[in-house]
Amino acid sequence: MSDISSISEFELIERLNNIIVANSSSNFSSENIILGIGDDAAVVTHTGKKEVVTTDTMVENTHFVYETVDFRDLGWKSLATNYSDIAAMGCTPFYSVVNLGLRPTQKISDIEDIYKGLCDLTNEMGGAIIGGDIVKSDTFFISITVTGFSENDNILTRNGAQVGDDIFVTGHLGCSKAGLEIILNTPERIDLNENIHFMKSHTRPTPRVKEGLELSNAGITTAMDISDGLLNDLKKMCDSSKVGANIFIESLPADDHLKNRYPEKWDEMVISGGEDYELLFTANTKMIFNLNDFSNSELISIGKITERNSGLRILDSHGNLKTYSETGWDHFKDK
Amino acid sequence: MSDISSISEFELIERLNNIIVANSSSNFSSENIILGIGDDAAVVTHTGKKEVVTTDTMVENTHFVYETVDFRDLGWKSLATNYSDIAAMGCTPFYSVVNLGLRPTQKISDIEDIYKGLCDLTNEMGGAIIGGDIVKSDTFFISITVTGFSENDNILTRNGAQVGDDIFVTGHLGCSKAGLEIILNTPERIDLNENIHFMKSHTRPTPRVKEGLELSNAGITTAMDISDGLLNDLKKMCDSSKVGANIFIESLPADDHLKNRYPEKWDEMVISGGEDYELLFTANTKMIFNLNDFSNSELISIGKITERNSGLRILDSHGNLKTYSETGWDHFKDK
Repeated sequence: MSDISSISEFELIERLNNIIVANSSSNFSSENIILGIGDDAAVVTHTGKKEVVTTDTMVENTHFVYETVDFRDLGWKSLATNYSDIAAMGCTPFYSVVNLGLRPTQKISDIEDIYKGLCDLTNEMGGAIIGGDIVKSDTFFISITVTGFSENDNILTRNGAQVGDDIFVTGHLGCSKAGLEIILNTPERIDLNENIHFMKSHTRPTPRVKEGLELSNAGITTAMDISDGLLNDLKKMCDSSKVGANIFIESLPADDHLKNRYPEKWDEMVISGGEDYELLFTANTKMIFNLNDFSNSELISIGKITERNSGLRILDSHGNLKTYSETGWDHFKDK
Repeated sequence: MSDISSISEFELIERLNNIIVANSSSNFSSENIILGIGDDAAVVTHTGKKEVVTTDTMVENTHFVYETVDFRDLGWKSLATNYSDIAAMGCTPFYSVVNLGLRPTQKISDIEDIYKGLCDLTNEMGGAIIGGDIVKSDTFFISITVTGFSENDNILTRNGAQVGDDIFVTGHLGCSKAGLEIILNTPERIDLNENIHFMKSHTRPTPRVKEGLELSNAGITTAMDISDGLLNDLKKMCDSSKVGANIFIESLPADDHLKNRYPEKWDEMVISGGEDYELLFTANTKMIFNLNDFSNSELISIGKITERNSGLRILDSHGNLKTYSETGWDHFKDK
């Protein structure tokens, strides 16, 4: 259990590079990476496709609790949140670079576990880690930048929702929030299958890369990933598209575990939970027809895009407006 | 003088985006950026060139002192260190994404100044800021990823130095170290021109983008930027190329200001100072001939590449070995 301070920065980089080599099963590198870790910059090649880029940072005490976090999960999630953004553009993940801010007392094996988690994801979803930077910091953080490219030139954005479109989500929402509550409030982490289901939704979210590509191939134009909560993110999409939206509570995408465990507040958890990393998208009738064979067999509309001046409304089965106190997540604003 | 906590994350992003729009004079965006800040990812296009990518992080108390740093300079330098890596590959900077870890009590105007500094550099050297992420952190940091591309497919690496090659540096070394000493030890910052010269070398280093491209066009194959000190970085080049090197003290590239101010230790500052961001490169006779019109009029060899088993040696004018206690910078290793 050695500290980072027992080896040099370059030894640490070499160890992490070894993790990548030992744990990577994809043949990505031989095709696309001309020069990987170890020079001033990495070199890649790909021919003439539109490229997308996103970046995301996770910080101890803001995004996770150092003492309880599983470092392999942290590696997975740090990259998965970025892959989710690439998926939301209807693109394929390409290469990633990783910045680590480390306290000298952190364990080398923990940092190696982070890299194993990164490789878990690239092995499952493609792409490769090709570079990074490691610096000393009083606060531990991991910051990852990921590029992707479009296979078909149909890049999904937030600004194309049209009045009359149906609104969809790729999977269930709220389980990540349930997992977070269990992690924070039940430190003993009772080993129930259901708890594991919730916690895994929080610690190992599945970026919808395959689904994003399917949406793009089906001619969908408008999508984003749900990271700050359904309502918060739908509001961003509506603002960007200059439209309003009605959401129907009875169609909210929650699984039975969530409804059973939280009968009083599952709807609020679905609406404002955050960190679901499902895709939110809109589609007109023709697009819905194209989505016939969509991976997610249950393609149930959760609402309708409306005129801008109708605002964002949540309606119960009688058509009555419902309001929620918590609408999402903001890093800085005073509550 | 408002705190970050007085506005939302999205308001802050919008303000910073406004800084970019208001301060950018380059026409880069219209040509290459299909979609900038504001969606899940940014979208760029460029056709079929080899792409390079690098990333670099600066952290308070590690890379700068929060109380004394000039934020516009910090913006410049955070990006300049990355541009220096792109330059060292012989490439042209393309797009950048910026991660900020912020304490809620930081001033909005300071963060805006960082972005003004970023724009100062893109206006001078090309490229564009097209995205980023802002998170809450107990420690302030800025982490930037920059891509570039090769104009001519001759990408400069560290591993091509050949026995007999001459060793060159694009400019003077050591002034950045002098600037750092003044900043740390002379808080009153006596307003001498010479102090300004030293401090500016430290706070506003010039990445050698133009020179890197010239080297690449001249057929140079081996270069890197000097960030950790001449000796430290030359060692990396030698390790990578499996060669040794002799450096001649009398040819060390120091300017008169440095020699006058530090008559006893200017050579040590040149050799181990760090953060110079000049380019270190090697060339054989034919390449040197091609460099006839090099921007840097004084093209003086500072040493020779030797056989691997000769190691890395510093020689005085009599051919005697000289040793130095400080050889460079390592983030983690216990001293």
